Amino acid sequence: MLIECIPNVSEGRRPAIVAAMADAIRAVDGVRLLDYSSDAAHNRSVFTLVGDAGGVERAVLALFERAAVDVDLRTHTGEHPRLGAVDVVPFVPIEGVTMADCVALAKQVGAAVAARFQIPVYLYEEASANPLRKNLEDIRRGEFEGLAAKMATAGWAPDFGPASPHPSAGAAVIGARMPLIAYNINLATDRLDVARKIAAAVRHSSGGYRFVKAMGIRLEARGIVQVSMNLTNFEKTPIFRVFETVKREAERYGVAVLESEIVGLVPSAALNAAAEFYLQIEGFKAEQVLEHKLRTEL
Amino acid sequence: MLIECIPNVSEGRRPAIVAAMADAIRAVDGVRLLDYSSDAAHNRSVFTLVGDAGGVERAVLALFERAAVDVDLRTHTGEHPRLGAVDVVPFVPIEGVTMADCVALAKQVGAAVAARFQIPVYLYEEASANPLRKNLEDIRRGEFEGLAAKMATAGWAPDFGPASPHPSAGAAVIGARMPLIAYNINLATDRLDVARKIAAAVRHSSGGYRFVKAMGIRLEARGIVQVSMNLTNFEKTPIFRVFETVKREAERYGVAVLESEIVGLVPSAALNAAAEFYLQIEGFKAEQVLEHKLRTEL
Repeated sequence: MLIECIPNVSEGRRPAIVAAMADAIRAVDGVRLLDYSSDAAHNRSVFTLVGDAGGVERAVLALFERAAVDVDLRTHTGEHPRLGAVDVVPFVPIEGVTMADCVALAKQVGAAVAARFQIPVYLYEEASANPLRKNLEDIRRGEFEGLAAKMATAGWAPDFGPASPHPSAGAAVIGARMPLIAYNINLATDRLDVARKIAAAVRHSSGGYRFVKAMGIRLEARGIVQVSMNLTNFEKTPIFRVFETVKREAERYGVAVLESEIVGLVPSAALNAAAEFYLQIEGFKAEQVLEHKLRTEL
Repeated sequence: MLIECIPNVSEGRRPAIVAAMADAIRAVDGVRLLDYSSDAAHNRSVFTLVGDAGGVERAVLALFERAAVDVDLRTHTGEHPRLGAVDVVPFVPIEGVTMADCVALAKQVGAAVAARFQIPVYLYEEASANPLRKNLEDIRRGEFEGLAAKMATAGWAPDFGPASPHPSAGAAVIGARMPLIAYNINLATDRLDVARKIAAAVRHSSGGYRFVKAMGIRLEARGIVQVSMNLTNFEKTPIFRVFETVKREAERYGVAVLESEIVGLVPSAALNAAAEFYLQIEGFKAEQVLEHKLRTEL
């Protein structure tokens, strides 16, 4: 069973403190720290870990323990919005585990964080049953500085823990979501208006596909423009459909797709779905992928 | 390191004998028997195993040991062409291993089989440096019954072992090859002539792509026809190119592609290449596939 967990911590300027957090994760059995990186302008670090349910739970609690000692939101500054010391903790199903399992884990970890550290916890995304509290942006609006007032208003009691913020650690947002795919399509033009119109056509917020976030940007060095996207649920809004729509919209302006790019990691199921679509493969099963078969048999 | 090995044995009518061969493979450390199946008409069984170089070598030698006792080509009958008791042994690179490694392994196992069992061994496919002795069909032509005469002719001395057949076990063909992909494309027509013309257009033997074997067949029950193919090197002749060519050739007869199908297993790299092609993904690396990353990091 493999669950990915990507905790975001409000500390990105003191490397020794961040390294101590990484060490605390590494010391946990049943989990592996794949990567971590810090952004000084955001004053924020992102850890990527994988393991079984027990392993990722223990690692997240160990991280809260370090952050409780080393991070104080009362003196924290940075460009990125944040509510708490350990700000956001998403659990992502990877292999041999369902979204329902990850939702259950988010609730269990949320309850444990609240009980052990007296930190209020909000559930988000798939772990939240309340449509007003599914989006991270909605929960985080007002940030740490506005948190005490927000928590006192109707509808903002936390899912777990005390009714007011932890003095130094604020609150935490814990949940479950699908893997994100960072997917960009470069257009053979320097017309930013075209990239922006296409981004508006495909993104959810302006009437496009439900699981697409998109913006049009200029790639100055290359003299071209890009539709820069996050695909937040590749099963329900697949890559190939987004690609074909962008391509068709670009045609309308006489513009060709130059290339696309996947930034960072992509689940193999997302690529397989594209192969299935274009090759018109009927009755394809994940078990037919040689490496999948070997992984499950060995 | 993962190598796949698919030995073909000339026994498919006595289940207890075949089961004893499977048990002999299972008793070996460092290898896993994924599957085996027998065909009574062919009087032949196929074993699929994976493991490291040492494991698959020991398993193949254990299989030769059982077959030497239980299979006698002098009394063997069946529809499928064959030269020996353990007839063909291909090694296939899967993960963390190169084709050169598999060629070296084929030679090492070939030498060991010849030395231990006094069975002549022919190398084939990538393990053979002689263009006249690369194709299995060429090596196997004349079958066991014609083997003694063939071995006495110029150019047919074996790569390892005695200059004449083993009395009961014949000869063995051992080599290295890419994974095979069994890939079929169904056409929205009942015209067998169209499927046959397209098969002729794409297959190597009649001027098509180098690593395609193809034939046109009728799917009686569905009232349609199929271009039935084996892709023998998906890196050099990729699935998407074959699909696009079949589709284009079908158009010329006013026929549409109904669907395609992959029979059995397919390496993820073959599917990823199709996603890359159609989505025009630049700079894609296998390391970006989440499962690949997890597999190599864990």
